Amino acid sequence: MFILRSPLYVDRMRSYTEYLTMNVPGKMAFVNLTPRVEECVRKSGVKEGLCLVNTMHITASVFINDNEQGLHHDFGVWLETLAPFNPDPNVYHHNRTGEDNADAHLKRQIMGREVVVAITKGKLDFGPWEQIFYGEFDGNRAKRVLVKIIGE
Amino acid sequence: MFILRSPLYVDRMRSYTEYLTMNVPGKMAFVNLTPRVEECVRKSGVKEGLCLVNTMHITASVFINDNEQGLHHDFGVWLETLAPFNPDPNVYHHNRTGEDNADAHLKRQIMGREVVVAITKGKLDFGPWEQIFYGEFDGNRAKRVLVKIIGE
Amino acid sequence: MFILRSPLYVDRMRSYTEYLTMNVPGKMAFVNLTPRVEECVRKSGVKEGLCLVNTMHITASVFINDNEQGLHHDFGVWLETLAPFNPDPNVYHHNRTGEDNADAHLKRQIMGREVVVAITKGKLDFGPWEQIFYGEFDGNRAKRVLVKIIGE
Repeated sequence: MFILRSPLYVDRMRSYTEYLTMNVPGKMAFVNLTPRVEECVRKSGVKEGLCLVNTMHITASVFINDNEQGLHHDFGVWLETLAPFNPDPNVYHHNRTGEDNADAHLKRQIMGREVVVAITKGKLDFGPWEQIFYGEFDGNRAKRVLVKIIGE
Repeated sequence: MFILRSPLYVDRMRSYTEYLTMNVPGKMAFVNLTPRVEECVRKSGVKEGLCLVNTMHITASVFINDNEQGLHHDFGVWLETLAPFNPDPNVYHHNRTGEDNADAHLKRQIMGREVVVAITKGKLDFGPWEQIFYGEFDGNRAKRVLVKIIGE
Repeated sequence: MFILRSPLYVDRMRSYTEYLTMNVPGKMAFVNLTPRVEECVRKSGVKEGLCLVNTMHITASVFINDNEQGLHHDFGVWLETLAPFNPDPNVYHHNRTGEDNADAHLKRQIMGREVVVAITKGKLDFGPWEQIFYGEFDGNRAKRVLVKIIGE
């Protein structure tokens, strides 16, 4: 008689996909995604693996930093200095398309599109202050964030 | 009689590796990699997983943004403002090595080295405007991009 | 009689986790992590997969660039230009918390939190000059870097 031993099942690969919808009023804002991503990890059943969190839009970011309002204010001021809003199509050629959001495409490059977080013993393997944020740079409409988990 | 059921095979891990060669004339340019990465995903047979796309060179980037020529023009102007070309070894110490490309190493940090994209139901799980680009900041020679896919 | 064939075992997923401790004297510095990450890959036994390396702290970075001292000097000067140190809480609101490291949170966004590197045939699949660095922007205390490997 053949008995199929559990390690085959323990080691098998799992994946999990969830889409979060963001609806940020105003042009720029930062939203803490951490509780929602933790819930995805729990639902996935993955104990050891990787968790990708990315914005699906090109005028927004997903990044990891501090959950501190003063710092978020500083991010806003700083990004406006590095990549200022300017609807003038002579300043940003992208705005010749009829858009006025060229600056948001640049700001997103500074802050990044995605984070990849380790999952260890069934939890996001975070340092003491790490939190996942959605950064909106051209808001006032619905956008999506993708959470993809693979592991065992 | 023991029958080995298909889930064991369905859930097994697969990986796929491909190297794309870039040959960009001129110092700075952006090349859309999306069709070639989609072809890699198709060849990998992976239905659920992660796709890493990274430049293998440190004066180039792989990033996701809009397939719009005006925006690419804006990226070029903006990067030149944030990290201007200057061959003077008193301005950039890296150029004391005999290179003149210190600015390209800095530009690449703004735009990033890699992207990780979810694969769902056998396809790159993209938002409406997401496209993968190779960003060259010190061209006129052959460079490589790595596509690595893992999943089930 | 049923014989369980080896492909089931060859294809099974593995994971590996290691924490590296960094202790950088001084405020800003760059440390080459490559040999320690290569050792993790060797210990993991993974032949085909992905290797995530991330700082667990929000005033530090992990990034890939050149192992060249002149360039590291240039990174320091450049980051100080883009996100200057300033303890004044009127300049950076984050410094109203009693911290003086707002600039380090900004510098880290430029340089990034993490890298994901392909593992091919049991080795980090690197281009000719790629090396992994830890970037410290608020040092003089112990911090950790996470190495997470998944694959087969």
